Parts: sequence; structure tokens; C-alpha cells
Amino acid sequence: MGRIICCGLGPGDPDLMSVRADRTVRTAKHVAYFRKKGRPGQARRIVEGMLAADVAEYPMEYPVTTEIAFDHPDYIRLLAGFYDEWAERLARLARAVDVVVLCEGDPYFYGSFMHLHARLQGRVEIEVIAGIPGMAGCWNAVGRPIALGDDVTTVLMGTLAEDELERRMRSSDALVVMKTGRNLAKVRRALASAGRLPDAWLVERGTMPGERVARLVDVDEADCPYFAIVLVHGQGRSEVTE
Amino acid sequence: MGRIICCGLGPGDPDLMSVRADRTVRTAKHVAYFRKKGRPGQARRIVEGMLAADVAEYPMEYPVTTEIAFDHPDYIRLLAGFYDEWAERLARLARAVDVVVLCEGDPYFYGSFMHLHARLQGRVEIEVIAGIPGMAGCWNAVGRPIALGDDVTTVLMGTLAEDELERRMRSSDALVVMKTGRNLAKVRRALASAGRLPDAWLVERGTMPGERVARLVDVDEADCPYFAIVLVHGQGRSEVTE
Repeated sequence: MGRIICCGLGPGDPDLMSVRADRTVRTAKHVAYFRKKGRPGQARRIVEGMLAADVAEYPMEYPVTTEIAFDHPDYIRLLAGFYDEWAERLARLARAVDVVVLCEGDPYFYGSFMHLHARLQGRVEIEVIAGIPGMAGCWNAVGRPIALGDDVTTVLMGTLAEDELERRMRSSDALVVMKTGRNLAKVRRALASAGRLPDAWLVERGTMPGERVARLVDVDEADCPYFAIVLVHGQGRSEVTE
Repeated sequence: MGRIICCGLGPGDPDLMSVRADRTVRTAKHVAYFRKKGRPGQARRIVEGMLAADVAEYPMEYPVTTEIAFDHPDYIRLLAGFYDEWAERLARLARAVDVVVLCEGDPYFYGSFMHLHARLQGRVEIEVIAGIPGMAGCWNAVGRPIALGDDVTTVLMGTLAEDELERRMRSSDALVVMKTGRNLAKVRRALASAGRLPDAWLVERGTMPGERVARLVDVDEADCPYFAIVLVHGQGRSEVTE
């Protein structure tokens, strides 16, 4: 009996993978990873040059459709079928061999692998290797503490409704906004309404080649950054600063 | 000119240090770390067996006093003087050599090094190596995703007032409570009032020897766990689950 090893790769710089993840990737014989059709895939890119020559690769390509919107029930059904199918394939494969699934960041923190994790429960042994979350790579790129002292830190998805974003941005000390992409204009408006826009940073491709760190107010509104996280630093409630 | 390298060590298991941190620790000639008087120090313990034989160690021992409460202005002044002094010593040392400061978790996320970081700005070159935050080691130990889909994740300090804790526990999907220690009874009451106690986990010494994972309701009220974090998992708002 093999296992499924979900390997957290960290924020993008291979040097920030854990020692365990590094060893797991280099000795893997079977490697699976998500990617968009026609793209190399972000997780696969992180391990470029690290895989054994005779490794078997299983790119799990998201189903694409130009006809159905991402939030349409038909697309959600398509996606669920895709996860079902790959859970079945990986479970079958893991009866004989260890399969390493490559995951960006930390798998248990908003990780795509969790769709498979839920489906594989009780069917096969699963090991998950923690990784540095993408957001930590991003706040490291800014070079200032994201939170200290008694700060409250809130992690928000840019997909939330604008009024909820605004309310939560107003009431938290430190802020992390993920899933920005097409939601960036909304995130910017919510930050402005909450009075937090002047202190917001955008980090694109944190710790990766092409990394960009900018104040969000300086980012052109027409700009559409990839792998971008928005950060607002806490000021350190009840902190010893004198 | 040397540098000060603040090395994030991750949650505790040395195998979860980053490749860069591992290399930095093993090749360090001068190593500093915080510890309580008479204790080995948590950061120092993580790197046990990894340091070079001829390394110079600089334990930075917190000032202790049995006469003054931790939140008393006199103690805060004592602590500020302690940070001032060590910032001065490290800056002087780094004029000639590289100094590696060992930090648990991720330095920029509620890290104690930030007291020195603020004081060292502009005086010496500082490099910070990201690490897996302690909380990620803890949710990995539970073996379930802490957050997924559109979940809102809130990180709270157990030092906050009970009514603020309760309010924020009620309104967030996923919860992480740090600085539990002597605040655990208050944290428990706030979770109960917010209706979240049945879903709360306590993880003590996550990824370290003596790790304990328990439902908080099963933890004896007289129990006083060390290095403990309380977690409540998000359920995955707007998530594809079918």
C-alpha cells in the first residue's frame, strides 16, 4: 500500500520549501499537480529542476469552458466531477505506490488539494507536509511585521461582498486579502471606504521571479496583477515601543 | 560589514525549517536567541544538534522580576531597556561578522525579534528568513483544513478583553487564538458565549515532542498547557463540496 503525500511548497522560492518537502520532491517517483489547460502550473514551476529524471507526472488540468460562468451550477458540477475523477485515479494509483501531490503555500490553508483531501478520507493514507503560506512570503517581501503585540489579523477573500469587506477591513488591525485578481477594483473601493487604502500594499508573485511590491494606491487601476495579495500592516496594539 | 540574519525556524520540528534556514543555521558562526532565565529557550531547542562546534552563542535572557507585574510601567521600561541593550550589542557585533538570530515560527508574524528589528532599522543590514508560522504547524497536527473557499480567518490574542474575543469569535469562520497560557479560561468562556466551544481544538507543542491535540472541551480546566494554540476550523463558505 502506498500513500498520498500532499507536499506544501511554500510561497514560491524553492529555497523556502521545508527540508522535508525538498527531500520528498527530490525522491518522488509519482508526482501530481493542478494546472490550467495549456499552462505549466504554478506548483510544477516551483519544483523545476528538482524532480528525478524518471519521475511520472500527472498534471490535473482544470476543466475549462468558455460558455459557462465560474459560479454557474453547471460549472460547479463540472468541477466536482473533475475532483471526483482525480480522487479516484490517485486512490487507485496509491494502492501500489507513493504519490506526491504538489501544493503551493500551506495545503491546509485555503489549498486546492482540500477538494481531494475530503474525497480521499478513509480510502487511502494521506500525509500532509506544512508549508510557508503564500501570504507569509508576501509580507516578508514588504520587509515589515504584518502583526505584533495584541493586533487582530484578518484574512479575507476578495470574492466576498463589498460591504462585508469594508466592515471587516474597518475593524481589524492587520489585513490580508487573497483571491484579488478580478476582484481588485472592489477590494480597492472597500479599503478606501474603510479608510485603509493609504496603508495598503500589493505584493505580486511574492518571493518568485518578477516579484513586485507596491503601495496599492500607486498601482494603475487597469493593471491586472497575477498571484497578488493585498496587505495592511498592524501597528502593534499594546506593544512595548518606547 | 556583517549582517543580522533573522532566521525563522518554523513551528518546532527541525524538518519543517526551510532549506534556507537549515543552511543558515548549520553554517552560522554567531547565533543569538531569546530565552527565559534558567531555560534552554524554545528557539535554541529547535536547532539542537545542528550548530557548528565552534559557534559563538548569545542567549538574550529576558529580565525577570518577581516584584513587578508584566503589565506594570516599570516592567515595560525594564523590557524596553533590555531590547535597547541587545539591539546595541548585536549592531556592534554585526559591524564585523554575520549574526544569526533564531526565531520560532515566522519572524514577521507576532515575532519577538520585531522589538530588535524596529531598533536596528538604518543601523545595520537585516535579512529576514520566512518560516512556517506556529499556527500552521498546529492546524497541520489536527489534520483538517483550517480554512477553505471564502472563509474569513481571524487570528486573535488571548490577551484581548473577553467581550472583544467573544464578538470576534462569533463573527469569523475560522479562528486561531494565540497567547493562550494564563488566558485560557477567558478564551474558553468567550468561545462558549460565542457558541464556538464545541468546535474548538487545543494544540499544545504542535509538531514538537510531546505534541497534544485535544478538543478544548475535553481539556481539564486546571490544566495549563505550554505553547498552546486554540483553533476553530472554517466550514468552507461558497465551497464546491457536492
